[in-house]
Amino acid sequence: MDDSRPALAIDIGGTKLAAALVEPAGRVLTRAQVPTPRDLDAEQLWRTLDALITDVLDRSGVALAADLAGCGCGCGGPMEWPAGVVSPLNIPAWRGFPLRDRLTDRLGGLPVRVHNDAICMVAAEHWRGAGRGHDNVLGMVVSTGVGGGLVLDGRLIKGASGNAGHIGHVVVDPDTGPLCGCGGRGCAEAIARGPALVTWAQAEGWRPDQKDATAKDLATDGALGHPVGLAAMRRAGRALGIAIASATSLCNLEVVSVGGGLSQAGPLLFDPLEEALRAHARLDFTRQVAVVPAALGQSAGLVGAAALIFAADRYWHGD
Amino acid sequence: MDDSRPALAIDIGGTKLAAALVEPAGRVLTRAQVPTPRDLDAEQLWRTLDALITDVLDRSGVALAADLAGCGCGCGGPMEWPAGVVSPLNIPAWRGFPLRDRLTDRLGGLPVRVHNDAICMVAAEHWRGAGRGHDNVLGMVVSTGVGGGLVLDGRLIKGASGNAGHIGHVVVDPDTGPLCGCGGRGCAEAIARGPALVTWAQAEGWRPDQKDATAKDLATDGALGHPVGLAAMRRAGRALGIAIASATSLCNLEVVSVGGGLSQAGPLLFDPLEEALRAHARLDFTRQVAVVPAALGQSAGLVGAAALIFAADRYWHGD
Repeated sequence: MDDSRPALAIDIGGTKLAAALVEPAGRVLTRAQVPTPRDLDAEQLWRTLDALITDVLDRSGVALAADLAGCGCGCGGPMEWPAGVVSPLNIPAWRGFPLRDRLTDRLGGLPVRVHNDAICMVAAEHWRGAGRGHDNVLGMVVSTGVGGGLVLDGRLIKGASGNAGHIGHVVVDPDTGPLCGCGGRGCAEAIARGPALVTWAQAEGWRPDQKDATAKDLATDGALGHPVGLAAMRRAGRALGIAIASATSLCNLEVVSVGGGLSQAGPLLFDPLEEALRAHARLDFTRQVAVVPAALGQSAGLVGAAALIFAADRYWHGD
Repeated sequence: MDDSRPALAIDIGGTKLAAALVEPAGRVLTRAQVPTPRDLDAEQLWRTLDALITDVLDRSGVALAADLAGCGCGCGGPMEWPAGVVSPLNIPAWRGFPLRDRLTDRLGGLPVRVHNDAICMVAAEHWRGAGRGHDNVLGMVVSTGVGGGLVLDGRLIKGASGNAGHIGHVVVDPDTGPLCGCGGRGCAEAIARGPALVTWAQAEGWRPDQKDATAKDLATDGALGHPVGLAAMRRAGRALGIAIASATSLCNLEVVSVGGGLSQAGPLLFDPLEEALRAHARLDFTRQVAVVPAALGQSAGLVGAAALIFAADRYWHGD
């Protein structure tokens, strides 16, 4: 047994498919990615992933599965966990797709572990990113949705069905907040997800007729001083700050790492977030929490997938 | 070593001091309690507790500390944990009182473990009460304050400084909610704690001049059909339901046990709680949560204190 063997890490999202070899210490070696294909069926999509894996293994000179410590994979949810039967919301071609079994077959019986991509993100940030050295960390992804994962007392929290970490559905405005995709009202996600911000801003007169306007455009205009862009970022930051305050009281968090596309807006988002958080987190122990940008950026999914192999005692409680 | 030895369990609150012997399976044997003395200094209060311990040990024929498996003690917070140096909000005589050390001396070096009373309550409900058989449980105490404790993935959650479980400071009405004792606005506790309900009801015309009116009076009047009493219980139930919805999304809870004086209001409180919870907990995994009255009643504190000794792997992470 060679303890320096790398893991094959895979990150499957609605935007891109990525694969890489990752060292036991978390460094990403050979890496490949392609945009997530559209309009393919389940098997065609699998062949795209298969080719990506072959590319990474060939380029890094790994001929045998025995040269690998294992394969970790993050994938958009929901999924049956730990069976790894996936139905990613943003990948309609896969409904009930047995991803873990297919990867196990493909890799000659190598240990394969599949988990939610938001779980992989918090595992990465806790293992090698902004949460390193802390035992109580919430990792958030603010993008098309608002997702997250929880590490408490040094271990990834699973919850009743592997769904702990859904910070996006913490309620921040139960009376006057917008309806949420979940069916509730006033969830943090209903306010702070990118598309919701765009909808709100367009109703306020920002680029009202541009169908493909994005939250990134909105943040850019905000940075240039557009009042609706600024107000939209304040709106998102406030909703996230209140949700983080509630999570901090309930879970006695030390660090909250915020990643995802919208986190690129920087102080435009983080300043109002801090203001709302500090207004509501007033107990001695909640004041201690630090909110920081996610440290691993685009690599978080791959590093977290590798953590399922290299730090299984903390991040993998399945079989 | 005799594995059937009982533990000495102690429960220290602002209303009563209780002590008992508890069997390894959780059954409460000999028990004694006294109202918490007022207007005593720290040493006088200690002597009251000392006498209570002597009474329980004498009556049960336990002569030697070696006849006991250990001593578990729940005490109102805050405290330095695991040192057990306590400063209970409702017991002004003890500020920085070294309770764990004093008990250790008193009991001849027997293992002594002291934890927050809300932590003991959730440990009890998870070990032998309403949460038994479930791995993800929030235990709540709704009374003068709104406190709680969290068991996730089968283990008591400590958090950064032993403060996980503060459900009372989950924000449920950030815009128009009342100021909270913590300094924030719209915390569940600011709305649903007994004294806040009384203040609200008196402003609405219920017993406006009765200085010693209690939340119990309010619930009683509500049960008799008084519209302000009913509205107050709805107000509390809704605040608690929203907080529970947020906690369920974040922690993927299975069971929430609700105890404390206000929980005695029954359907008057639980019906609006359920209504608000079900309006906001709409994801498949959050719909699964069950809210139940705490099962152990007045014994919860003692049973939970004993759990610190008999099920230390789950409920005691200190030294």
